[in-house]
Amino acid sequence: MNSQPAVVLVQKGQLEIQERTVPEVEDPHYVKVEVMATGICGSDIHFYREGAIGPFVVRSPMVMGHESSGVVVEVGDKVTQVAVGDHVAIEPGVPSRYSEETKAGQYNLCPHMRFAATPPVDGTLVKYFLSPEDFVHKVPKTIPFEEVALLEPLSVAVHANKLAGTKFNDTVVVMGAGPIGLVNGQVAKSFGAATVVYVDIKAASLSVAKEHFSASEVVNAKEVSGPLDEAIRKAVDDRKIDVVLECTGSAACVDAGLKALGAGGTFVVVGMGADSVPMPLNLMSMRELTIKGCFRYCHGDYADAVALVAQGKVQLGKLITAKYKFEDAVQAYEDVVSGKPGAIKSVIMGPK
Amino acid sequence: MNSQPAVVLVQKGQLEIQERTVPEVEDPHYVKVEVMATGICGSDIHFYREGAIGPFVVRSPMVMGHESSGVVVEVGDKVTQVAVGDHVAIEPGVPSRYSEETKAGQYNLCPHMRFAATPPVDGTLVKYFLSPEDFVHKVPKTIPFEEVALLEPLSVAVHANKLAGTKFNDTVVVMGAGPIGLVNGQVAKSFGAATVVYVDIKAASLSVAKEHFSASEVVNAKEVSGPLDEAIRKAVDDRKIDVVLECTGSAACVDAGLKALGAGGTFVVVGMGADSVPMPLNLMSMRELTIKGCFRYCHGDYADAVALVAQGKVQLGKLITAKYKFEDAVQAYEDVVSGKPGAIKSVIMGPK
Amino acid sequence: MNSQPAVVLVQKGQLEIQERTVPEVEDPHYVKVEVMATGICGSDIHFYREGAIGPFVVRSPMVMGHESSGVVVEVGDKVTQVAVGDHVAIEPGVPSRYSEETKAGQYNLCPHMRFAATPPVDGTLVKYFLSPEDFVHKVPKTIPFEEVALLEPLSVAVHANKLAGTKFNDTVVVMGAGPIGLVNGQVAKSFGAATVVYVDIKAASLSVAKEHFSASEVVNAKEVSGPLDEAIRKAVDDRKIDVVLECTGSAACVDAGLKALGAGGTFVVVGMGADSVPMPLNLMSMRELTIKGCFRYCHGDYADAVALVAQGKVQLGKLITAKYKFEDAVQAYEDVVSGKPGAIKSVIMGPK
Amino acid sequence: MNSQPAVVLVQKGQLEIQERTVPEVEDPHYVKVEVMATGICGSDIHFYREGAIGPFVVRSPMVMGHESSGVVVEVGDKVTQVAVGDHVAIEPGVPSRYSEETKAGQYNLCPHMRFAATPPVDGTLVKYFLSPEDFVHKVPKTIPFEEVALLEPLSVAVHANKLAGTKFNDTVVVMGAGPIGLVNGQVAKSFGAATVVYVDIKAASLSVAKEHFSASEVVNAKEVSGPLDEAIRKAVDDRKIDVVLECTGSAACVDAGLKALGAGGTFVVVGMGADSVPMPLNLMSMRELTIKGCFRYCHGDYADAVALVAQGKVQLGKLITAKYKFEDAVQAYEDVVSGKPGAIKSVIMGPK
Repeated sequence: MNSQPAVVLVQKGQLEIQERTVPEVEDPHYVKVEVMATGICGSDIHFYREGAIGPFVVRSPMVMGHESSGVVVEVGDKVTQVAVGDHVAIEPGVPSRYSEETKAGQYNLCPHMRFAATPPVDGTLVKYFLSPEDFVHKVPKTIPFEEVALLEPLSVAVHANKLAGTKFNDTVVVMGAGPIGLVNGQVAKSFGAATVVYVDIKAASLSVAKEHFSASEVVNAKEVSGPLDEAIRKAVDDRKIDVVLECTGSAACVDAGLKALGAGGTFVVVGMGADSVPMPLNLMSMRELTIKGCFRYCHGDYADAVALVAQGKVQLGKLITAKYKFEDAVQAYEDVVSGKPGAIKSVIMGPK
Repeated sequence: MNSQPAVVLVQKGQLEIQERTVPEVEDPHYVKVEVMATGICGSDIHFYREGAIGPFVVRSPMVMGHESSGVVVEVGDKVTQVAVGDHVAIEPGVPSRYSEETKAGQYNLCPHMRFAATPPVDGTLVKYFLSPEDFVHKVPKTIPFEEVALLEPLSVAVHANKLAGTKFNDTVVVMGAGPIGLVNGQVAKSFGAATVVYVDIKAASLSVAKEHFSASEVVNAKEVSGPLDEAIRKAVDDRKIDVVLECTGSAACVDAGLKALGAGGTFVVVGMGADSVPMPLNLMSMRELTIKGCFRYCHGDYADAVALVAQGKVQLGKLITAKYKFEDAVQAYEDVVSGKPGAIKSVIMGPK
Repeated sequence: MNSQPAVVLVQKGQLEIQERTVPEVEDPHYVKVEVMATGICGSDIHFYREGAIGPFVVRSPMVMGHESSGVVVEVGDKVTQVAVGDHVAIEPGVPSRYSEETKAGQYNLCPHMRFAATPPVDGTLVKYFLSPEDFVHKVPKTIPFEEVALLEPLSVAVHANKLAGTKFNDTVVVMGAGPIGLVNGQVAKSFGAATVVYVDIKAASLSVAKEHFSASEVVNAKEVSGPLDEAIRKAVDDRKIDVVLECTGSAACVDAGLKALGAGGTFVVVGMGADSVPMPLNLMSMRELTIKGCFRYCHGDYADAVALVAQGKVQLGKLITAKYKFEDAVQAYEDVVSGKPGAIKSVIMGPK
Repeated sequence: MNSQPAVVLVQKGQLEIQERTVPEVEDPHYVKVEVMATGICGSDIHFYREGAIGPFVVRSPMVMGHESSGVVVEVGDKVTQVAVGDHVAIEPGVPSRYSEETKAGQYNLCPHMRFAATPPVDGTLVKYFLSPEDFVHKVPKTIPFEEVALLEPLSVAVHANKLAGTKFNDTVVVMGAGPIGLVNGQVAKSFGAATVVYVDIKAASLSVAKEHFSASEVVNAKEVSGPLDEAIRKAVDDRKIDVVLECTGSAACVDAGLKALGAGGTFVVVGMGADSVPMPLNLMSMRELTIKGCFRYCHGDYADAVALVAQGKVQLGKLITAKYKFEDAVQAYEDVVSGKPGAIKSVIMGPK
């Protein structure tokens, strides 16, 4: 059969399942993957509700989905890195091989990047998806497909912690205990952090952080009376904070995170937020803080994410609070939009 | 004689020359320097006019001056690094030898730092000043003392360019063509930058930048009609900007500098300004910009500043637009406050 | 009482317990420590048997010992980092505070270093030992003194792994499963290494590596028929080896370690050996190997060693195979010289 | 016409000009270059005389040449980085786009590298040569083609100095004043080195170093009576040597270079030599020396080499001591083999 179901964003606010043509492997370095599971990400919701994220605007119908796992079902003639039958995580962004950035190891900055479900590029919520051999990552077959799909956000956390330089015995603060925050904290722990403190305004998220994501302490920003940065420093017994991983995009968190950070520390901007956010310039100068923007992931990050899961250091299954059949995909998006209490991450299973 | 003249800030707005006791070399690792020349810095003016900079408040009379040169006239028993008769630049901040920061090579972040003319520590505008042997830096005798005094701001520029990682063939933008901006651009050039663009609102400063401080291009922000970041990018023919050295503290410059910077580039906060300044958070994230606070100088910076001058790479004399006798020191400060057109840097010669 | 017992190397081959004067705290940044336990190190044995290590020659009687723990019993007036009653590890080498190296964070390279029990500096095998406040490191009181003494070799391993850049998911090979090798492997694991392979010729040492020091695999070089580097690569299933920590000084191990290392990998020279050792120059070039000499420890290493023990990541007690009373110290050295099967590390408890 | 002349190594010792088919641009990212000049490299001579270098053995006729410049005469459909008519340097090694090493920015270590004139890959000594668009580097038309050809060895020197971390005010020693040594020293100077000392046994080479390649001092190893490392240290007035760039492969130079290097310094292995060379293990350890193997060049190196030439920092023309017509190519190789006094570099101009 030459046709497959696809979850399509027809235009802002209008999602539906349509039939699309099954693509053929033409490039000898490409593989065909049967998609088994796909996570729903905050950016998907932005496109669904607002039709755009910054410069990326949905101008024609686009297949959704970019956090996916699957099984390799066909490989091009020159493929050597994976084989038919392999379980894989699909890395959703493919850069130009000829750009300066890609060749410097930073393909996330490649201006010719084609990223699944970022307009105008179609996403992974189909039955069969094509990818270059080096942008699918083999995983142990013992890991459920819905967890493998979440290697995408886990790779974001790997990338952020590499930028942060998180290392043995560090004191790390994670602003935001949503899915991205939780995996950031867990990666920090796996990279050797002695202390990981999560800050959020949802008690439920902070409970999950404590139970499954190695929280040394948590700070509920809603329950803090004085300045938030003081509450954070108190939570670490006034030890020097080496790293802040900012996963909210909120101006209040950016401010508190920078003020809590120790002299010479590193603050990584993982979360998107307002286009312009106030920052404490003089403090940044006097404490020689380093602030690093963080965008997706690049060379080596998926490999480390696979290792984290294979070694049992991250329990991605603990993030999944809802699973949907492919035919219920539209409902899955609706449910995320309506926002159920305690919801962390929803996954849509691939079409049968 | 046991008494010496000193330029004393009695209280906010009240400067006078008083007699002070000549200090004795007691610590075997200390030296006594006869001060020969002292530059006036923007921070001096802040203390003079406002009595405070941030947390540092003038609460009792304080000797001014922290950009000084001199001649070693006495050395402690264990001194090996300099000798009587050496011409030296005085590094004005002495940290604790026991702090984590000092031992990590970052004594500028030492919480126990004692910095000349930062309350409550007395400064260098006296006849004889004591310093540890490793905080005076021997210079060739061919360099005039008034230029040696300016190794202090030059060391700031060395530190900023090290933080920036300025290297061969870089494209560098310097926001602000005052004394700190000019030496920053010159150090960038000496570290290998191919292109140095200065941005300022004073035509006279930009002329000096062109004539003596290696400006490849200059941008007069007053004469720009569209967005400043576009004008800056145009000035470099749309080449990727690797480094921005922000030496103004102005919110408009911070914004334009960050927007002009290329993906993966580094922005160094050299200048102090408002306590809170808006920054383009999403842009920082999507382009993976790095922002580094920069505070004074630390291990190795003065040595490189000496080398820059000794090798003739920086013409510090071109910064000096006024020289005063010690007895005219109060007038010197007044003149800086009143702000003469074309003035860059004033120097007070040491007492006879 | 003003006298204390000391284990003194009178001359090559002649060790005895003598009475020495108890030192007084004169420097306000110094503390007096009552020594509780001292490990015996290979270098001690060199001095005992040969009277010299390289340029360091025993020319007059010298107190032995440099791996010690104790209790702070007196502090100078300006001491703030430790207090009377604290249990501490004594860092045995004190550098000049004025040297370039110390101020650059690399005091291990300071040419003015004074190191306990390296001629002509007296060591720690006494009742009371003086140290600057920042060269004793507070430890939890729950850790036995004999284990605290072994923070010294553990700090060597921390330093080596920092030089190696050991990080999450690395494949690491440790040449030599003696005390230094074992702690190196354990630190590698704590820094995130996925695989740690030990190579030695003693089956007993390799068993200890497996049981207590996180060996993923071990290679008994005596039982290898083909080239040793091939056996090592086979032990890691031909995965790329990122780091080799060479802790033997043997020419055969240097050669095999370099040949086993993956392209772009790092080889750290921890062990001393012959003055001149053959290395595969062309291979080093074609694979762009990095080789780093490693000497003792420097700023921050002891702090990480304390953290490793406090967090339970290293079981130093598993290294200790013999404990001696102070009055049996000479016998302790003799036993190490004679070399009992299965012996790893001997500790002499402090005088009562 | 569909045929072109080529300089072919038929087998060890047998070079001749043959006719070869002109290749067609099939890959849309490829360009066709008309070759204008080609340098002769030491490795060419190895293949000519011995038929092999290490694992690379000439088993069938191979076109020679890998240091070439030319003019772009045709471009594939997707080419954007160069255009017809551009003068370019040809980067002779093309890696796999799918390997770990290439994606990490280190394509020089790619195991699938195809390098011109390294068996079994044909070289550049033809009229028309095909290359991916990003492996030809546009240069200003004012630079003679024979100098552009020498961007290849210049890129080696750029790569070596990046590995060395050569920076402002460094003291650098270059072992060997042949073509590779000379450009290494010149790049060191351009990267900011204050002092560059060359060591060789040929007075003529050392004269060229002094006249055109920024030698601060030279050491003629033949005229040294005591240890060579002492002579080198004396040549720099006992200043700390930060970097040694070893371009000879000689065991005596490796030994002297390592012994001369300052504590914490970096030694880069640029030159190939014996497979096994003795190194001072204990010294490497006690001084914490870093030794880095250096192989060809990788991402960004050619761009910096172009900049060096465009900015006039390196006078590649000073290296060229003989120019040959294409039809005299065999003679050119013969002349290099016979070794004329004062010869540095020979260039064969492209076929008319």
